Amino acid sequence: MAAEMPSTADTDWTDIAAKAQTRLRNSIPSEWRIPQNKLPPDDQLDVTDFPAKCGLLTDAELKITESYATEIVGAVAAGEWTAVEVTTAFCKRAAIAHQVTNCLTVVMFDDALKQAKKLDDHFASTGKTVGPLHGLPVSLKDNFNVPGYPSSVGFCAWALEPLRKESTIVGILRDLGAVSYVKTNVPTAMMIAESVNNVYGRTVNPLNRNLTSGGSSGGESALIAMKGSPLGVGTDIGGSLRIPAACTGIFTIRPSFGRYPHFDAGTGMGGQESIASVHGPMARSVADLRLFAENVSNYGPWLKDPKCIPLPYRSIELKPKLKFAVLWDNGMVHPTPPVARALKEVAAKLKANGHEVVDWSADGHAEAMNLMGKLFVADGGQSIRKILEASGEPLRPEMQSYGDSKDLGVYELWQLQKQRTALAKRYLDRWAACEGLDAILSPTTPYAAPKSGDFKTVSYTGVYNILDSSATSFPTGIFADKEKDVYEPGFKAYDDVDEATKNDYDAAAVHGIPVSLQLVGRRLEEEKILAITEKVVQELAL
Amino acid sequence: MAAEMPSTADTDWTDIAAKAQTRLRNSIPSEWRIPQNKLPPDDQLDVTDFPAKCGLLTDAELKITESYATEIVGAVAAGEWTAVEVTTAFCKRAAIAHQVTNCLTVVMFDDALKQAKKLDDHFASTGKTVGPLHGLPVSLKDNFNVPGYPSSVGFCAWALEPLRKESTIVGILRDLGAVSYVKTNVPTAMMIAESVNNVYGRTVNPLNRNLTSGGSSGGESALIAMKGSPLGVGTDIGGSLRIPAACTGIFTIRPSFGRYPHFDAGTGMGGQESIASVHGPMARSVADLRLFAENVSNYGPWLKDPKCIPLPYRSIELKPKLKFAVLWDNGMVHPTPPVARALKEVAAKLKANGHEVVDWSADGHAEAMNLMGKLFVADGGQSIRKILEASGEPLRPEMQSYGDSKDLGVYELWQLQKQRTALAKRYLDRWAACEGLDAILSPTTPYAAPKSGDFKTVSYTGVYNILDSSATSFPTGIFADKEKDVYEPGFKAYDDVDEATKNDYDAAAVHGIPVSLQLVGRRLEEEKILAITEKVVQELAL
Repeated sequence: MAAEMPSTADTDWTDIAAKAQTRLRNSIPSEWRIPQNKLPPDDQLDVTDFPAKCGLLTDAELKITESYATEIVGAVAAGEWTAVEVTTAFCKRAAIAHQVTNCLTVVMFDDALKQAKKLDDHFASTGKTVGPLHGLPVSLKDNFNVPGYPSSVGFCAWALEPLRKESTIVGILRDLGAVSYVKTNVPTAMMIAESVNNVYGRTVNPLNRNLTSGGSSGGESALIAMKGSPLGVGTDIGGSLRIPAACTGIFTIRPSFGRYPHFDAGTGMGGQESIASVHGPMARSVADLRLFAENVSNYGPWLKDPKCIPLPYRSIELKPKLKFAVLWDNGMVHPTPPVARALKEVAAKLKANGHEVVDWSADGHAEAMNLMGKLFVADGGQSIRKILEASGEPLRPEMQSYGDSKDLGVYELWQLQKQRTALAKRYLDRWAACEGLDAILSPTTPYAAPKSGDFKTVSYTGVYNILDSSATSFPTGIFADKEKDVYEPGFKAYDDVDEATKNDYDAAAVHGIPVSLQLVGRRLEEEKILAITEKVVQELAL
Repeated sequence: MAAEMPSTADTDWTDIAAKAQTRLRNSIPSEWRIPQNKLPPDDQLDVTDFPAKCGLLTDAELKITESYATEIVGAVAAGEWTAVEVTTAFCKRAAIAHQVTNCLTVVMFDDALKQAKKLDDHFASTGKTVGPLHGLPVSLKDNFNVPGYPSSVGFCAWALEPLRKESTIVGILRDLGAVSYVKTNVPTAMMIAESVNNVYGRTVNPLNRNLTSGGSSGGESALIAMKGSPLGVGTDIGGSLRIPAACTGIFTIRPSFGRYPHFDAGTGMGGQESIASVHGPMARSVADLRLFAENVSNYGPWLKDPKCIPLPYRSIELKPKLKFAVLWDNGMVHPTPPVARALKEVAAKLKANGHEVVDWSADGHAEAMNLMGKLFVADGGQSIRKILEASGEPLRPEMQSYGDSKDLGVYELWQLQKQRTALAKRYLDRWAACEGLDAILSPTTPYAAPKSGDFKTVSYTGVYNILDSSATSFPTGIFADKEKDVYEPGFKAYDDVDEATKNDYDAAAVHGIPVSLQLVGRRLEEEKILAITEKVVQELAL
C-alpha cells in the first residue's frame, strides 16, 4: 500500500475513475439506493426536500437529521438517542444526499456503525460518554485520511489506494467521541472554487442543481445543506471553506493556521507553506461551529501536531456595541446585486442597532491576490502535474496556470514571502489605526451562488488566507430576489473577469438562494469572530 | 537613505570597513577612550576585572553595573537611581567592554541619555514610571533597526547607511521604558557561530581573549559578560543566542517563533521562512530573562507584528519532581570533556534531588542538521551574495557553502519542508511517548568555549531550530578543569569534524571557563522552560 505515491501508472485514468465510481456506488447498501425512476427528475433544481419525501427515512430518523449537532450530542449524552440510531440516520440521509448532488467520495458506513455500537456499549456499561462529541457523526472532506480508505484529493492516481495513515484531526475527533462515516467531494487538488474532478465528477448545489455548491469543500457544503451531516470538516487555502459555505447558505470558520491540527491531511501541494492550508468546521449554526472549535482546542492538539499552537479555547465577552468596517467592493470584482444588497441591509441593521459601522478600503487586496496567484504555482505546478502524470490524467481547464508556470526558484519565493509579510504588517497597522475595530464585514464571494462553471474569483476570501486572518461565512437571512437584485445602470467593469461576472449573473437563476457574507477578525481571534458572528446572526433574525 | 539596498557600489569595501570602524571609534566620547598603554596587554586573556580596575567608573557606577536588570528597574522605580545615572554607568562600561573585546558596532549614547532624561522628567513630574522597564538600558544585536543608525548585519554594504525604519521590538522596548544605547557585533549575515565580519572584525571572549564569545549574538555575550549591559536582545536561527551565551557563561532563551516580535529585524536572508529566525533576551539570571519575556508578552506584540501569536505570559506551577531526558551525545560530535563532565554531574545532582532522569536518543538529529544545511542555502546563497557583491566584499571562508550552492527550486524546497514537518511530528510523538517528560537536558555546544576560529558545529542547538522548540542555555556553575577534563582513552571519532573537535581541544586553554548546558521544552513552552531552568540552577547552587 503506497502512502502518497501513485501506483496506477499502467492503468488508464478513465478506468480508474470508472472503478472509483463503481466502488462508491456499490458501497451504498442496496436498500438505500434509489431507483432511477424514484429520483427527482433532472429538471428539479431544488432537491432539499427529497430526503423527507423519498420514504427512506423514518420519522425518528428525520427528526434526528433535522437536529443541530449541539442537540444531537445532548440527546445522546442524555440517553434519548443511541449512537447507532444517530449514525444510521445520517448514513441513510448522506446516501440520499449523494444520489441527488454527487457529494460523496468515500462511504464508511460499516465501520461507522461498528464504532457507534462500541460507543453505545461504553455508555451502557459506564453511564458515561467517551467525550463531548460522543455519538456525533462528522463528515470529512476527501483529503482527510482515514486508514483503510483512499483520499483521492480529486486525483485519479490516488482514487483507489487505501491509505494506512490517519490525519491527526481524524484521530482527535474519534477520541472526542465523534463518528467518521463519509468523505466528501472536492475539485482536483482542491484548487478550483467548484467541486469537480476527473474521478467523481461534479457536486451540485442542492438548493438549485444548476448552481455550484462551491469549492473546494463543496461536497461538504452540499451534504450539510441536505442535512446529511450535522457537522463537517473542510479545508481552506484561498476560500475553500467559506466559498462553499456561502454557496449553500451554511456556516463556517476559517481559523488561522496552527489553531486546529492539520497534520497529515492530504494535499496536492505537499510542503507548500507560503499560504497555509487550514481546516475548519462547517455546520448549520454558530453553536455547532463552536462545539467543534471548543472541543478540538481544549483537546490539546498541539501535543499531536507540531504546527499547532498551544491555545486552549478562550472565553470571550463582547462589548455590547461593536465596531464594524465594511468592505463594499474589493476593487477587483463588483459583488453581484444580491450580495451588494445584503451588505447594505446588514450594515444598515447593525447601524440601527447602535453598532459603529465605518468603511473599509480595499488597500492591499489586489496585491494580496497577485501574491496568491504567484505563490500557488511557485513550484511551476510540478507537484500537481506529477500526480496527474502518474495516471495520465489530463489537467483540467480550470487549472491551466498549473500547466503554464515555471518553478520560480527559492530566491524569488523568498522575495514574495517578504512582500507578503510586509503586506500583512500594513494591514495590521491599518486595523490598529481604525481604533476599536472588531471585525470587517465583507462579501464572501461576489455571488449568491453562480451556475456551475461560472465561479470566477476567490478575491474576497483569498486576501484573508494571505493575511492568515480568522474569518467566518454566515447566511444573512437575506435571499436573492429577481425583482430587487438587478444591476444599476452605468456599471463599469474593472476588467474582463468583472465584466464576465456581470454577464454571467442571472437574476432568475439565483432567485431564492440565500446570501452569505464574511466576518473577518485578526489572526487567531477564532473565539471572538465566532461570538461576533453569532451576535450578528441573532440581531439579523430579530 | 536606502532601506536595505546597498548604495555603496563605487566604494571599495575596505574603505567602508575603515570608515565604519572610525565612526565607531569616534562615537565613543574621548574621555571614555582608554590610552593604548592603559589597556590590558594583549597577552592578558581574562579582562573581566578591567572595568573595575581601569578607574573610569565611580563606585556608584560599579555598583549599578554589577546589578541585575530586575534590581535596576526596582531601584529606578523606587527613586533610588535615576535613569540618567544608570544609563551613564552602562554607556561607560559598554565603552570599556568594547575596548577590550571589540563587542560594539553602534554607539547611541547621546540619544540614550536624552531618552533617560525624559524618563527621569516623567518620573519626577508624575511619580510614575512609563513602564516596567523604566530606565533600564538594553543592548541590541546589530540587526535590530534603530532609526538614524545603520544595521550592518556584518555586511560592508550596509555598514554606513543610517536607516529610517525601526524593528518592532525596539519600539516596544522603548514603550516599556527601556533605553537603547548600543548595538553589538555579529558575524557576516549572522551565519557564523563566531562573531567576526569584514566590517568590524572579531569579538573576543572576555573570560579568555583567545577564545570566541560565540555567534551570532557574540557581541551581546561579550558585552553582558563584561557587565556592560544588564539585558541584551539577540537572535537565533541555528543557535545564535544559545551558543554565545554558553561561550561566556550567561543565560538566554530561544523562544519559539511568533512569541516575541521579530518584524523588521535585519537579515541577510530576507523572506526565508523554512527555519524561522527568532529573537530572545540574554542576561546574567533567569529572573532577568523573565523580566523581558513577561513584559514583552504582556505588551501584546501581536498587535504590531503580524507573525506574533496572541499568547500573554502564562504563569507556571512546576511539579516538585520533574522528569528530564538527557541527550548525552548527538551522534555527530562528542561533547568535549568539560561538557561531558558537566552533563554527568548535573544529571547526577538532579537524580539525587529526586527528579526522574532518563536517556534521550539522538534519533532525528542528523536528519535535522542535514535539512538545516540544505535550507540555509536553498536560494543558492544568492541573497547573501547579492549583498556582498554590492560592496565587492569577499565571501568569508567560514561561509563557503553560500558561494558553492545552487538555487534548489521551489519544488525541492517544498519536499524539504515536508520532510522537516514529518521530523517534527516524530520528535513530538517521541516526547509524548516519554510519559511526563518535562525537559531535555543537552549540551549547548560540544565546547566550554573554543578558541577563535575553532567553532565547528551547531548540531546541538540547530536541531531545536528545525523543531522550533523553546530552549534555554544556562551556566551550570561547573568550570572546565584541566586536571579532570581529559579525553578517555579509546575515543573513536564519528567523522572528520568530530576528530578535529577532539584535536582542537586544549584543556589548559579552557581551564576555568564556565560550562553551560541547554534545557529544551516543547514548542511555545517559554514560561515552563524558564521556570525549569531557574529551578535547576537553584538546585545546582545548593
